[in-house]
Amino acid sequence: MTTIRVINPNTTVSMTAAIGACAAAVAGPEAVVEAVSPVAGPVSLESQVDDALAVPGMLARVAEGEAAGVDGYVIACFGDPGLAAARELAAGPVVGIAEAAMRTAAYLGRRFSIVTTLARTVPHIEELAVSYGLERQCAGVHASGIAVVDLETDPLAREKIAEFAEAALVADRSDVIVLGCAGMTEFTAWLAERLGVPVVDGVAAATATVAGLLRQGLRTSKRGEFAVPGAKPFTGTLAAIEPRALLAR
Amino acid sequence: MTTIRVINPNTTVSMTAAIGACAAAVAGPEAVVEAVSPVAGPVSLESQVDDALAVPGMLARVAEGEAAGVDGYVIACFGDPGLAAARELAAGPVVGIAEAAMRTAAYLGRRFSIVTTLARTVPHIEELAVSYGLERQCAGVHASGIAVVDLETDPLAREKIAEFAEAALVADRSDVIVLGCAGMTEFTAWLAERLGVPVVDGVAAATATVAGLLRQGLRTSKRGEFAVPGAKPFTGTLAAIEPRALLAR
Amino acid sequence: MTTIRVINPNTTVSMTAAIGACAAAVAGPEAVVEAVSPVAGPVSLESQVDDALAVPGMLARVAEGEAAGVDGYVIACFGDPGLAAARELAAGPVVGIAEAAMRTAAYLGRRFSIVTTLARTVPHIEELAVSYGLERQCAGVHASGIAVVDLETDPLAREKIAEFAEAALVADRSDVIVLGCAGMTEFTAWLAERLGVPVVDGVAAATATVAGLLRQGLRTSKRGEFAVPGAKPFTGTLAAIEPRALLAR
Amino acid sequence: MTTIRVINPNTTVSMTAAIGACAAAVAGPEAVVEAVSPVAGPVSLESQVDDALAVPGMLARVAEGEAAGVDGYVIACFGDPGLAAARELAAGPVVGIAEAAMRTAAYLGRRFSIVTTLARTVPHIEELAVSYGLERQCAGVHASGIAVVDLETDPLAREKIAEFAEAALVADRSDVIVLGCAGMTEFTAWLAERLGVPVVDGVAAATATVAGLLRQGLRTSKRGEFAVPGAKPFTGTLAAIEPRALLAR
Amino acid sequence: MTTIRVINPNTTVSMTAAIGACAAAVAGPEAVVEAVSPVAGPVSLESQVDDALAVPGMLARVAEGEAAGVDGYVIACFGDPGLAAARELAAGPVVGIAEAAMRTAAYLGRRFSIVTTLARTVPHIEELAVSYGLERQCAGVHASGIAVVDLETDPLAREKIAEFAEAALVADRSDVIVLGCAGMTEFTAWLAERLGVPVVDGVAAATATVAGLLRQGLRTSKRGEFAVPGAKPFTGTLAAIEPRALLAR
Amino acid sequence: MTTIRVINPNTTVSMTAAIGACAAAVAGPEAVVEAVSPVAGPVSLESQVDDALAVPGMLARVAEGEAAGVDGYVIACFGDPGLAAARELAAGPVVGIAEAAMRTAAYLGRRFSIVTTLARTVPHIEELAVSYGLERQCAGVHASGIAVVDLETDPLAREKIAEFAEAALVADRSDVIVLGCAGMTEFTAWLAERLGVPVVDGVAAATATVAGLLRQGLRTSKRGEFAVPGAKPFTGTLAAIEPRALLAR
Repeated sequence: MTTIRVINPNTTVSMTAAIGACAAAVAGPEAVVEAVSPVAGPVSLESQVDDALAVPGMLARVAEGEAAGVDGYVIACFGDPGLAAARELAAGPVVGIAEAAMRTAAYLGRRFSIVTTLARTVPHIEELAVSYGLERQCAGVHASGIAVVDLETDPLAREKIAEFAEAALVADRSDVIVLGCAGMTEFTAWLAERLGVPVVDGVAAATATVAGLLRQGLRTSKRGEFAVPGAKPFTGTLAAIEPRALLAR
Repeated sequence: MTTIRVINPNTTVSMTAAIGACAAAVAGPEAVVEAVSPVAGPVSLESQVDDALAVPGMLARVAEGEAAGVDGYVIACFGDPGLAAARELAAGPVVGIAEAAMRTAAYLGRRFSIVTTLARTVPHIEELAVSYGLERQCAGVHASGIAVVDLETDPLAREKIAEFAEAALVADRSDVIVLGCAGMTEFTAWLAERLGVPVVDGVAAATATVAGLLRQGLRTSKRGEFAVPGAKPFTGTLAAIEPRALLAR
Repeated sequence: MTTIRVINPNTTVSMTAAIGACAAAVAGPEAVVEAVSPVAGPVSLESQVDDALAVPGMLARVAEGEAAGVDGYVIACFGDPGLAAARELAAGPVVGIAEAAMRTAAYLGRRFSIVTTLARTVPHIEELAVSYGLERQCAGVHASGIAVVDLETDPLAREKIAEFAEAALVADRSDVIVLGCAGMTEFTAWLAERLGVPVVDGVAAATATVAGLLRQGLRTSKRGEFAVPGAKPFTGTLAAIEPRALLAR
Repeated sequence: MTTIRVINPNTTVSMTAAIGACAAAVAGPEAVVEAVSPVAGPVSLESQVDDALAVPGMLARVAEGEAAGVDGYVIACFGDPGLAAARELAAGPVVGIAEAAMRTAAYLGRRFSIVTTLARTVPHIEELAVSYGLERQCAGVHASGIAVVDLETDPLAREKIAEFAEAALVADRSDVIVLGCAGMTEFTAWLAERLGVPVVDGVAAATATVAGLLRQGLRTSKRGEFAVPGAKPFTGTLAAIEPRALLAR
Repeated sequence: MTTIRVINPNTTVSMTAAIGACAAAVAGPEAVVEAVSPVAGPVSLESQVDDALAVPGMLARVAEGEAAGVDGYVIACFGDPGLAAARELAAGPVVGIAEAAMRTAAYLGRRFSIVTTLARTVPHIEELAVSYGLERQCAGVHASGIAVVDLETDPLAREKIAEFAEAALVADRSDVIVLGCAGMTEFTAWLAERLGVPVVDGVAAATATVAGLLRQGLRTSKRGEFAVPGAKPFTGTLAAIEPRALLAR
Repeated sequence: MTTIRVINPNTTVSMTAAIGACAAAVAGPEAVVEAVSPVAGPVSLESQVDDALAVPGMLARVAEGEAAGVDGYVIACFGDPGLAAARELAAGPVVGIAEAAMRTAAYLGRRFSIVTTLARTVPHIEELAVSYGLERQCAGVHASGIAVVDLETDPLAREKIAEFAEAALVADRSDVIVLGCAGMTEFTAWLAERLGVPVVDGVAAATATVAGLLRQGLRTSKRGEFAVPGAKPFTGTLAAIEPRALLAR
């Protein structure tokens, strides 16, 4: 058995539970999923400031996981915050849900559309598509205007997302939908049924990817950029959760 | 249980068996792997002519698989021959080993090097990297000069591949090795041990990817380009293996 | 005198004749055009499956041409099927109509629009534009919804194409029209008159290009990728038209 | 008079002083420079983990600056950590030294070479060049192997940097050198004299850029992505330096 | 004190005066601005022919400036005509207003829109954005239909530009406006107030950039492409203004 | 009969004659070639200043050609100086030798190497390859160090070029050579024989291209950017050769 730690980088515990359930459903019989939130951070991530503040507590969860023998990690926020830093700390594979969702969509059709939450997150998602080499396949990123925390509570959220997705398929001439927020994970099957096209949820995609990497025996390369960085003199309030201090315990 | 059909597009049966064994090792307990060769074609694929002649017989195996209820497919030649055509025929996912290997390598490090067989295949592999959006991550494609059929019989093949891979890691400043031929699948674990970096075998990567897609319930989008094309009047010698005729049976 | 073989990769003989007439009109007094269809294949090419099934019979026509001393080849289908494979077989130049049409359009204006047949062919044409390095110049690919075989029989086809082209010039802010199917070759002059902009027909563009290459004494490079591949053991139904067997005769 | 706050994201105070002196020398008579370190973080930034841990304390310095009426900011680490987050918080312009150095170099020659510290930082710098659209102009990124903290203490550091830069000019066929670490700022004039080509120091480049933006009355756009994000419920150890809490004071 | 020569490449003297005033306002207390027109050329530049005819007289002004000890140059036409040639002649920095405006805009937001004069200039501006590596940040180039010489005389010009800019911000999902003609320089402050986003004027941006380069002691690299080219035998009417003859005086 | 005017943008008359002979050899029996030099300009073009000074006199030759009924134009300098401006003036097609050579090479192999004259011209040629979308196919640009005027007089020039080309084929892993200067046109056949790969001369490639465009009835699009620009008030020494004045005669 292998252990996959799915880290929801925000501190909304109900969302962490939903993400964990979704991940467990695709991890396969050989993997155990544990879903956690950071030790510190905001209730949702909808800006670069939010991302920056969530990452240290998320990295602490990786360091803690290393000490506990975790085999692989999913970072369950569509901005892929702290992904490269987490790769430095982990021996096993670390996969972000935006990269996994986009690469997964590329196996299923020629072009995909992403439906996300607030308009201010769109440029960062477009930048990720460029960084991952998928800007030609990513035909459009569409903001629904629904905030992350409202996805769970707004009874019309699912319906609104469906309408944005249907319009995106036509406007973008695309054939796959990617859900651009971990908080949408529970809508996936309903949307796929409704839309008649593949709907990729990043949490499922990243978890299945980590499970597959583990079955292949593949881990993060420690040659070069992602080698574990040495500990350093450190000043101030973050010392208590500094991940290399946690690693060294 | 799901069924994954791994199609070795060449007609060397011993290679088909080795590929099937490799795929079965990573497909997970919920999937059955069946490995097949095309109904017609050359013993190895090392040119665009070889690819063109292998594809019709490979597509016949997809059409036949559809009739038999196969859930997903792997195309096990590093040129990804006939991949888009196979996606048109299949309801489930179809994954090529070059695209799967390159996308898998992108999760493990910043840059990967590909070690392949003959020099004449290098430009096509580079073109695939561009097409998949991975030209920045693909730091180099290196020909070992070993022909596909000699991989099985040359006792020094494995050692030569290792030497090319070691040189590539330095010259390309890369941190992951991708094996650029399905015939190298049996060298993977030995090479990873020898080199100390992740070594990605496309057969394993593609099989794990298809298994993961199936667990997520994801299939090829039939909206647009990959819809099943209608049958057409057809002239000549290929009529017996024309896949739409096979589909219609 | 030089001989240019124009291969219509589908088996609709009336279309082959029209293509041949168009090619002959631009080949110049020093070249003889011969137009042929493959020895086997579908009546039209509108999917990746169609392309895959047409290529072996098309390659047989190249091999046959080599034996007969043909000087250069045009592949007269806008998907450029089998182009790289044909270059491996031929000593002289081989030009596809999509690549010739796009490169020709780039001499005449800043941006061109392509008008083609069915929507499902659009993504492949866009992929060709990327592959040829012309994605910035290719301002849009527009499907008219007219099937290849209806171009000859639908009396309104020409008019519909004109309307799509006019709309494309405005929507794409383009200044040249490219006809995205060999079956439109007879509409070229009428459309140019009607639209007031250059209208590039791929059959004419490719034939003029081959004729020009022959006058310069330029042939396909046999250094590396496009060297003639050696013959190989071959299994099954395609053996009768395997091009290297034909070459060796 | 305008105030430019130059933030050295590491907590090595002697380096902060040197950076401040360099910035003051180019800010012009109309601007006052104040150089600060984060309220918390590591002594140097040489990994993605380092960057992630430095950013919250750096953002606190931005929030504090906003309260104090600072007009513009420089982020003085060549990885441009937290740049987008800082732009969300600041009303005025925020410039990173990597982006400023690369864009400045592009005015002076056709291609530039970057000389930096440790090899593990090279891929991130290359990624920044892609993100800023300067991958064609950035002809090479070269690691000197000298750690950030040794730049101040190793008496041979300057000479070694010069040798790497000279080799880079030849190997990369470049005509401008960019110094890839804020800790090299004091070497700039000596290197320019020694090498006979323009040598761009990011601290100077970013400070001059901010000063120039301020003279033009240009500030960060608050339309869309960089609007100030609202405060949120926040858990844990970072609450004391959460920048929106500081902003709201 | 340093001297910055701002060359308006057209021969409309009133525009030269306005450009000079704008440049002087941002050059800072340490720089003197002198604004000049070419010794020969058309009254406005709105085609490639115009650009070609303006450049020799503009280069003569550079050569003359070198003889007079000018420290740096701005080329004040949004097509950046003759920029590379001017760099060959000048010892100090030379900056074009299109490149400076686009790079400046990239510090202020994620995407910018350009509002320019006639439609025929749009493709060249788009080509410049590609050449400078800013095609992703340049979200759209919009022609107002107002000719250069009418910018000064049409009382509605300013209002029309504002309307195009407002529409562009929405259509392009952009957050910064770039003025695509030196003749719009006087509208900048009014537009910024009206639109509520940063408005970048190339004349100001380029002048501030040159001033900043001079404060850093940075000059054009003379290693390679931009070395001063030697004089040559020369035929015909341009001999009187051949810049190397002027340089040699 | 059609008339193709081949303009050698430099004023070395012996080179003009050689270029004319080369062009005539490939223009075909239906076209007459006339080779001319500009009415004014330098003896060779080896810098951006040279290009800028040659263009007005070259455009005068286009305007003069229009008055005389010339059908198409070749601009016979590998920097393609003034190409867009010439397209504005001409009704028929205008082709530069760099664009024609690179596009022609792309039909013959996967990657080409360019051998040119002085090192300082290399960056501009690389920029042209990017602008034409051929940066992937252009595997290298190599300076031989031989000045343009020495190509005719140095008895070893041909041999040196051959050595550079042979080395380039290996270093660049390319399969086609492109001659990067019109002054090398007479070496083409000898080099092709010597090297055993296709050698593309831009003068021949551009002339064959123009002849082919004329046979297709294709002319420069006058919709948008390349419409003939209206005449304008004009100041100074170039008035006598201002092309629109010549056009209007």
